[in-house]
Amino acid sequence: MKVLITTVPFGNKNRLPLELLEDHGIEFVINPLGRKLTEGDLIELVADFDVIVAGTEVISAKVMDNAKKLKLISRVGIGLDGVDLNAARERGIKVCYTPDAPSPAVAELTIGLMISLLRSIHVTNAQMHQGEWQRIFGRRIADSTIGIIGLGRIGTRVLNRLSVFGTPRLLVNDILPNPELDRKFKLEWVSKEQIYKQADIISLHLPLTFKTKNMICKTDLMSMKAETAIINTSRGGIINEKDLFEVMSSGHLSGAAIDVFEKEPYTGDLRDIQRCLLTAHMGSMSVDCRTRMEIEATEEAIRFYTGKPLRSEVPEGEYIVQSEGL
Amino acid sequence: MKVLITTVPFGNKNRLPLELLEDHGIEFVINPLGRKLTEGDLIELVADFDVIVAGTEVISAKVMDNAKKLKLISRVGIGLDGVDLNAARERGIKVCYTPDAPSPAVAELTIGLMISLLRSIHVTNAQMHQGEWQRIFGRRIADSTIGIIGLGRIGTRVLNRLSVFGTPRLLVNDILPNPELDRKFKLEWVSKEQIYKQADIISLHLPLTFKTKNMICKTDLMSMKAETAIINTSRGGIINEKDLFEVMSSGHLSGAAIDVFEKEPYTGDLRDIQRCLLTAHMGSMSVDCRTRMEIEATEEAIRFYTGKPLRSEVPEGEYIVQSEGL
Repeated sequence: MKVLITTVPFGNKNRLPLELLEDHGIEFVINPLGRKLTEGDLIELVADFDVIVAGTEVISAKVMDNAKKLKLISRVGIGLDGVDLNAARERGIKVCYTPDAPSPAVAELTIGLMISLLRSIHVTNAQMHQGEWQRIFGRRIADSTIGIIGLGRIGTRVLNRLSVFGTPRLLVNDILPNPELDRKFKLEWVSKEQIYKQADIISLHLPLTFKTKNMICKTDLMSMKAETAIINTSRGGIINEKDLFEVMSSGHLSGAAIDVFEKEPYTGDLRDIQRCLLTAHMGSMSVDCRTRMEIEATEEAIRFYTGKPLRSEVPEGEYIVQSEGL
Repeated sequence: MKVLITTVPFGNKNRLPLELLEDHGIEFVINPLGRKLTEGDLIELVADFDVIVAGTEVISAKVMDNAKKLKLISRVGIGLDGVDLNAARERGIKVCYTPDAPSPAVAELTIGLMISLLRSIHVTNAQMHQGEWQRIFGRRIADSTIGIIGLGRIGTRVLNRLSVFGTPRLLVNDILPNPELDRKFKLEWVSKEQIYKQADIISLHLPLTFKTKNMICKTDLMSMKAETAIINTSRGGIINEKDLFEVMSSGHLSGAAIDVFEKEPYTGDLRDIQRCLLTAHMGSMSVDCRTRMEIEATEEAIRFYTGKPLRSEVPEGEYIVQSEGL
């Protein structure tokens, strides 16, 4: 069995996932380009492999048609926007993922970004390094209206971590109600539009689907208050980047913290806006969570190799979301 | 009665403190220089005033000798390093402060700085704005050893807020033990030197006294691990700035977050170090806490004017600390 590991970095803070493969005598190749692969890159690379230990790159029907031996895609992480699930099913390719491992790291980064935005840490840091001293007023979490869109594994963890900072007004939006969260927190379930209009800080915790792509465009951004700030640690493309740039260039919005981009590595215009805090898709990049993700994804590959049942096959709902274009 | 308000900004996010003075017919002047006053500035300004609503500037015996009418110093905030308490007592000048009001804002900023350091938010933001894409590995709070020096109002609040992020190893140091905190958290009470040697993140929550001035010098910084990061949101001068610059220039320490400086506005060399996250003495600068501080300090001035007892006179211990050079 031959494994292609496309996601990088891989095994470099903790070699254990590579050692697991070696111990089982499984041959593997780590992404030789050292960056996120394009569909074209992958088509050229994939012919000979039985398993892909995958990142966020596009694994389309076209890729699969050039991977005649491919039997398993094991995603390091949670987002499935890159994988054409139904094309995989048609070709008898199984897909598994590691949905829980990244969540604590993403939630913690989100809280850090939230405090950075509320207190203008990134702005004052840039000013100080440029020789300027300006004591900027900020807000505390408790004194803010916080809007969370998406209350899955990560959004729920963000809520939990907010609880220790006092009692902000919490506006939330998700497809389904959640009585358990209602028992724990004082939540106002409102429409996305209400969140845009009222929240001081908006944080997105959504998958990228047909329905969420470009979900937040110019009119949505303009419906926010001038002093609102927005955080995206979920997936690039949910906020339209061009619109965000235009709206922020016009002076609207007090800040944004963007960790994920339509095209990564990111080379776009938001880099010119100082109050836009940019991080390099680092939500899951804590050593412990990343290691857990890599080990879990590798263990699935080994289970497959040794004929054991998989533990984290992608649930049916994800196939339905993609096939119905939701 | 005439009041000199030296701390700036004052009353600009919320006019209530100024309105309180106006309602009582109390004449006031706000710092005409719009920046932290030097001892010399203050000597020239102070002659005619009964009360100073003070910031962190130096109010020495010399200043008081030029303020023959001065009867009350009402500090907006908690640190008393600027005020010569015993000189005030000798001259019959009362001193009060607002010790609780800033604490929640400082503690929250500290958590934000901690996540920034652990996840290199400030470094990746600078890189991204310069066109570089590097996914930097970080650590979660739960996966770190955190050292807190000083467990007063702010240090305790930092501990509390950390509790929601999992269970880091917590090394703490203070003059006195604290059984209440021991019941609530799993703390290891150790020497400062042990914290320097073992912690991944060190956060200072101390007053500036003769004993804490230059408490952390070159040898202390060098005894820390190369990947340790240090946070100072308490008072400038506790970490020797020159030594910190030298040590970080040599490549030691993964980062630092410095909010307070020996001389403010800060114009020193740390500005040349990208992994040094700099903020402009903004610990207490949340609108709600700053407003509470300004109102509390103003109310003390009004109580004094109307012959009512003061509520927050500086306790005896602070006079002893200064008179014994502790």
